[in-house]
Amino acid sequence: MRTVKVEIDHAPYDILIGKGALGRIAQIKALLPQPRVAIVTNATVAPLYLSALQSQLEEGGVNVLPIILPDGEQYKTWETLNLIFDALLTARCERKTTLIALGGGVIGDMTGFAAAVYQRGVPFIQIPTTLLAQVDSSVGGKTAINHPLGKNMVGAFYQPKLVLADLAALDTLPKREFSAGMAEVIKYGLIDDLEFFEWLEANIDGLMARDEAALAYAIERSCQNKARIVAADEKETGQRALLNLGHTFGHAIEAGMGYGVWLHGEAVAAGMVMAAHAARIQGALSDSELARIVGLLQKAGLPVVAPDLGADRYLELMAQDKKVDAGRIKFVLIEKLGQSYIGELSDEVVRDALAAGCRAH
Amino acid sequence: MRTVKVEIDHAPYDILIGKGALGRIAQIKALLPQPRVAIVTNATVAPLYLSALQSQLEEGGVNVLPIILPDGEQYKTWETLNLIFDALLTARCERKTTLIALGGGVIGDMTGFAAAVYQRGVPFIQIPTTLLAQVDSSVGGKTAINHPLGKNMVGAFYQPKLVLADLAALDTLPKREFSAGMAEVIKYGLIDDLEFFEWLEANIDGLMARDEAALAYAIERSCQNKARIVAADEKETGQRALLNLGHTFGHAIEAGMGYGVWLHGEAVAAGMVMAAHAARIQGALSDSELARIVGLLQKAGLPVVAPDLGADRYLELMAQDKKVDAGRIKFVLIEKLGQSYIGELSDEVVRDALAAGCRAH
Repeated sequence: MRTVKVEIDHAPYDILIGKGALGRIAQIKALLPQPRVAIVTNATVAPLYLSALQSQLEEGGVNVLPIILPDGEQYKTWETLNLIFDALLTARCERKTTLIALGGGVIGDMTGFAAAVYQRGVPFIQIPTTLLAQVDSSVGGKTAINHPLGKNMVGAFYQPKLVLADLAALDTLPKREFSAGMAEVIKYGLIDDLEFFEWLEANIDGLMARDEAALAYAIERSCQNKARIVAADEKETGQRALLNLGHTFGHAIEAGMGYGVWLHGEAVAAGMVMAAHAARIQGALSDSELARIVGLLQKAGLPVVAPDLGADRYLELMAQDKKVDAGRIKFVLIEKLGQSYIGELSDEVVRDALAAGCRAH
Repeated sequence: MRTVKVEIDHAPYDILIGKGALGRIAQIKALLPQPRVAIVTNATVAPLYLSALQSQLEEGGVNVLPIILPDGEQYKTWETLNLIFDALLTARCERKTTLIALGGGVIGDMTGFAAAVYQRGVPFIQIPTTLLAQVDSSVGGKTAINHPLGKNMVGAFYQPKLVLADLAALDTLPKREFSAGMAEVIKYGLIDDLEFFEWLEANIDGLMARDEAALAYAIERSCQNKARIVAADEKETGQRALLNLGHTFGHAIEAGMGYGVWLHGEAVAAGMVMAAHAARIQGALSDSELARIVGLLQKAGLPVVAPDLGADRYLELMAQDKKVDAGRIKFVLIEKLGQSYIGELSDEVVRDALAAGCRAH
């Protein structure tokens, strides 16, 4: 079992990575202020992992309230969040009841937000069951729900007490979901880890075959990258925004197509290709470096061409981004292969990158 | 102008108290990360103070988005909160837009919660226009909305950057609202400030006539008391719970009668009388001390007899309280006149206190 420490000042915590992490009941129990938890999961994940987790906890003397939500990004709403509050209040869950998120990014984001605001904050634990959640959304304390006018617009920074990333959970993950997670893995290479990017190029076939050793290494290294960035800037006043590489374009794709049509990771992949095009236009990437990025994403089974929503519609959608400051969109831009920075783009470069990103390679 | 400092570690701030505090535009402007604010207020307060505040800010070069909500505790809901998010997103308000709460406790609680979660947190400023908000709810960072199954069940600890308590705003405050605020003022005397309790007994007539000097002193001393308690225990892991004297009974009254039927301060007054009865039953207060508490609340125009919901219904409602731990209700109890503590009560004492508190004196 590998352990990555997230060194956030006021609330450090561990990420445990490995086969069987889900069964680490002793680690969970050691953190409970009261032997009572609510496990929040969805209708897809529940039949796979809920009963094992629940019965192990119950055997350990923990009272368990299961809360099963519908599955999908389109349910990442206030209405669904309220189902959690209804269940917690009906069962009289208290301030010392711990919420456990068992599922992918949507479950993690909603459960974390519910934990942040239920009775003004209760403890929570992340058990991510998708690759995307294991390498990205379960780490770092960003929680949120969507609003009809924008993704993740209502939320909180709220850290989990523990993250258990069980490789065994990836065995049942559909191929499309697995690929979506790979987009965030590749992102870490592009942000500031060229060595990891090149390792991914060399090991992409083994990863896509879900080779256990390769996967464990990729997840650990991704979590180390994220933990380092988050610990330095928990509330995203600066460098944490680098984690949004490809996300400004990506969120526009998700919103423009309707939440749930493109998976988040798919949209991020196409968004990173747009960012790479912008870098090529500005001379920061060569044609062959752009081709390496596109090639790696393609081998990971990801879309590299964005839907053609039209430049005006893209600009309108991106203006809703949380990183907008005084009307100017802040982009995460590629400085060179394996190094990114936060900056602005002229409308002309954005339009050229959009045109290139929406064109088949 | 009097200033009380709230010395919270990561986010200290000032409370300015005095006539004309609402016009301290320079203090507001100095705190804005961007010359843009949204003023959240309600349909009762807006005609009185909004245009003056808005025009002064606009003259100072600040872009102002007014958001006017319906007035009343029954609107302290997710649906109303969403009106704030809709307005902010439609106007493309960003992470650096500051929210200003202009109104009473409901506006302050909802605006503070909106600020805590909009785009995962934006700055906010409190301009409380009721006595209750000036001495209690605008100070200390407790924000929340109600849930059909419990008051303030969904919220956050989120500190304002500044509180401006304008005595002039109290001139237009209806008598019933003024009395409701006095309940929280008297509460501070009972928590741990006997000297203040006795000052209130001596000055209650002047206060009820809204004598400016008496009011300024009472508000300053209340804020000092609250600031001291909050700075020592921001997240209510211990002593901050003392601020809930009368509130466990009070919340049960509010929920049992339907939100908005009893004002919060009225319910707290009747709740403090219940706590005093419990103390008398346990021998912690003499009959004459109980009578002094009841007498002061009566002179402040407050109800001292709770509605007779029946002991079983009260117990059921109180079991929903946020201070419940492992099924046991934690009460704020009176140790002696001018000193409170946190503890439990036997069901028998609770039932006797309920019976006494629901009976006319």
